Amino acid sequence: MSLSRLNAAIGKINDVLCAASVLVWDSRTMLPKGGAVVRAGQLATLSLMARDLLLSNETRQALDGARREVESLADDDAWRRAVLRVEEAIALHRRVPAELIERKTKARAIGTAIWIDARANDDFASFAPALAEIVAVSRDYADAVGWSTHPYDVLVGLYEPGDTIADLSSLFDELKRGLKPILDAALARPRPARDFLDEPCPEEKVKAAARMLTEVLGYDYEHGRLDKTVHPFAISFTREDVRITMRLGERSFANSLFGAMHETGHGLYEQNVDPGFTRTALTTDLVGLHAGGGASLGTHESQSRLQENHIGRSRDFWRAHFGRMKELLGGLDGIEADAFHRAVNAVAPGLIRTEADELTYDFHIMLRVELEAALLKGDLEVADVPGAWNEAMKRHLGVSVPNDREGCLQDVHWASGAMGSFCTYTLGNVMAAQLFETAQQKGEGVAFGLAKGDTAPLCLWLKENVWRHGKRFTRDELLTRATGRALEAGPYLRYLGAKYGNGA
Amino acid sequence: MSLSRLNAAIGKINDVLCAASVLVWDSRTMLPKGGAVVRAGQLATLSLMARDLLLSNETRQALDGARREVESLADDDAWRRAVLRVEEAIALHRRVPAELIERKTKARAIGTAIWIDARANDDFASFAPALAEIVAVSRDYADAVGWSTHPYDVLVGLYEPGDTIADLSSLFDELKRGLKPILDAALARPRPARDFLDEPCPEEKVKAAARMLTEVLGYDYEHGRLDKTVHPFAISFTREDVRITMRLGERSFANSLFGAMHETGHGLYEQNVDPGFTRTALTTDLVGLHAGGGASLGTHESQSRLQENHIGRSRDFWRAHFGRMKELLGGLDGIEADAFHRAVNAVAPGLIRTEADELTYDFHIMLRVELEAALLKGDLEVADVPGAWNEAMKRHLGVSVPNDREGCLQDVHWASGAMGSFCTYTLGNVMAAQLFETAQQKGEGVAFGLAKGDTAPLCLWLKENVWRHGKRFTRDELLTRATGRALEAGPYLRYLGAKYGNGA
Repeated sequence: MSLSRLNAAIGKINDVLCAASVLVWDSRTMLPKGGAVVRAGQLATLSLMARDLLLSNETRQALDGARREVESLADDDAWRRAVLRVEEAIALHRRVPAELIERKTKARAIGTAIWIDARANDDFASFAPALAEIVAVSRDYADAVGWSTHPYDVLVGLYEPGDTIADLSSLFDELKRGLKPILDAALARPRPARDFLDEPCPEEKVKAAARMLTEVLGYDYEHGRLDKTVHPFAISFTREDVRITMRLGERSFANSLFGAMHETGHGLYEQNVDPGFTRTALTTDLVGLHAGGGASLGTHESQSRLQENHIGRSRDFWRAHFGRMKELLGGLDGIEADAFHRAVNAVAPGLIRTEADELTYDFHIMLRVELEAALLKGDLEVADVPGAWNEAMKRHLGVSVPNDREGCLQDVHWASGAMGSFCTYTLGNVMAAQLFETAQQKGEGVAFGLAKGDTAPLCLWLKENVWRHGKRFTRDELLTRATGRALEAGPYLRYLGAKYGNGA
Repeated sequence: MSLSRLNAAIGKINDVLCAASVLVWDSRTMLPKGGAVVRAGQLATLSLMARDLLLSNETRQALDGARREVESLADDDAWRRAVLRVEEAIALHRRVPAELIERKTKARAIGTAIWIDARANDDFASFAPALAEIVAVSRDYADAVGWSTHPYDVLVGLYEPGDTIADLSSLFDELKRGLKPILDAALARPRPARDFLDEPCPEEKVKAAARMLTEVLGYDYEHGRLDKTVHPFAISFTREDVRITMRLGERSFANSLFGAMHETGHGLYEQNVDPGFTRTALTTDLVGLHAGGGASLGTHESQSRLQENHIGRSRDFWRAHFGRMKELLGGLDGIEADAFHRAVNAVAPGLIRTEADELTYDFHIMLRVELEAALLKGDLEVADVPGAWNEAMKRHLGVSVPNDREGCLQDVHWASGAMGSFCTYTLGNVMAAQLFETAQQKGEGVAFGLAKGDTAPLCLWLKENVWRHGKRFTRDELLTRATGRALEAGPYLRYLGAKYGNGA
């Protein structure tokens, strides 16, 4: 009774957050230019209302009753965890004043709108004030929540609960040590031909191929859609309506398609949560005040990287599906599946994170985390970001950055206020390998299916072990239940070593 | 001080209602099929929240203060009227229980989703239960608000404040008497050639022509966009983002284009309201719980009919713009502006309201109002709607209805719960003629501009006399200020008589 009262209260919050997500989706895909400022205000209102509802007497009374009701349940019972998620979120939000939330929401919306133009015009200076406000808001947020070692820990914890910059540094050190010899080995080999990946291809043909591939991977268009945006993303308005987007242009069809497969991974996670969790704390990120979300953002990212890399960059997948893709795209005359597979696995340090190969990708992340932490601590000024970015690109990957469009303006993340979230990409890579290794070893028919390009058995395993649980388990609980171990870099380095190392 | 507190409270309500409108727009243009049910729940939550905010102690306390603050202002001062609009809305909503609002919102969303399929499949039976629920909810609503003569009066009053079925019947009688001889005269003449209006034309070309025409009429794409829907509509998320939609298919390009010009009229009204009224009770329909809205729905319709008919069906407009339209469409070989003008003014009783000529259009409305009133009073069962529809089409226009798709399933209005709103189309026709007659006689440069196809001076006159006022004045106040007289049928019958009557 009290639990259903709590679920009703959270359901209302979920409705408001889903509405906000529709407005976000619209603002990135459909919004006329003149509507951006008013839209930011509307989003601020919805965000504040969600927070007010969470902190309302109604919700807190329902929580008190529900807490007593679930006391006798198993510690990991879904509804005991739902109650816990509400408690955690209330504890956090009570520390953050409403004005700060409102400021953050506005800074994000305005930042995103300005970034679109700044990126198009390679004009960092026009974006700098918006970024400065985002950094200031993020720091004020960290201070309000409270921190002991590093303010950045608060931001990381919003996306990857419990993780700190110290944890990340230790993982990053292990990865750098492990990746270096594999990267050296890969770069010592002759590069495969990949010019045909830049063959011009009409947008509608690329979109048709993306539609086919995302369907092959299991994305459900009865409950989703695929649209064009500057930066691809996935977004959920409950499991019944989960949308993905992709870049579309005349060039780089492969980049567009791998982006779409990436977002498909996010989409599958959201579309396959337990239907009984809809509109509850197990499908609502009450900390981040977003609809949807899995065990952590890193966990979410593991699902997108798994689809993009472990499936999308595997030879077997293309042996099964290259022919249909080629037909839909037209062109690619004389190119066979294996040549395509080699091309999309070519290793070369480059400028753009979303175009990076598997061996250099994590260096892009380490760079961003380094800069974010320094911005947050006040060790780096916003005006110095382009210089620091370019220096770090040189240091990590030996690459010279010719302009900010292909440098520090390339990602939407800072513009959209997601300071602290970049680490989750590398955490996702690590988790993806850990889950994929176990799925292949233990999942019924998984390896057999993948050998034929059929991901259905893998989907079943992922649904059972990851997707259906929503926010019920923490990241490490989920990993331990699925693989027997908490987060570890081993499977990731093994996977990359086997694919690209000296023995490959 | 109290007034700004009230405006802040209403601003928040406007944000919630704008968010709801974005969800409505999305559900008609973008929503994947599987998302409809959850979306209905989200809309219900937003609608209830807007109502709760309106009836909250915060708003009512702010209202008490604001009422004292505006007491000394002129009776027609904008802010005194803003306070009055809040009072009127609170008085109404206090009578309507929350459950009924929730039921109404759900019935509308589900009704719309089901109607789309029912119309496509010509399957009235599948729509009947949804319609029955909409009628039941509408009747319960009328009973809750209270009525003396006819329950339908309550519904009409939601759209056209103060009007009753008795007022409508009297206006309709005058129109029937006046229209009959004009229609007879028009039908006695040979019909102009109009086959070329059905020339197939690719969707993207029709859309390009619509884009050009809507821009010529003054619609601002920095603050708007044009999309494809089954049933065209206009919707506002504040004056900064006002969207219009149009039908698009391979056939009937002219019908598509006139629909777009129609919605442009609605769009212009919303885009040109006084910017100082944004997010206040003067740009929020607090009675209907919608963002935007003018003096009344009939007033809004007058602006769309003015663009569609008085401008869009005038010879001078096409002498100026036909060439460009023809270029964008391709085809129409050998057709000149005057032939096009004659074709789009051809008179013939037909099945479809949105395709009806100016002389038969109002009969479509009278039929619907007749049926609605009977449904509301309980004199007509939902199951008997197709029969009653077909009988009335025969009686009013002598037309036989071959199927429900082209009969009682043709409009979205009932599906979307807008019982009582159809009368506003005819009220809009009458007002459009009244305003247009005065604008031509008294508006600086209006007649001169229109003779060259330039509507800019007319836009200025309409902005000054209609658009900028938002919900400040009532319909008859607005008409009296602009034309010197309250609503009257004379100018409309004079306009039609001159264009189509025996002397034409």
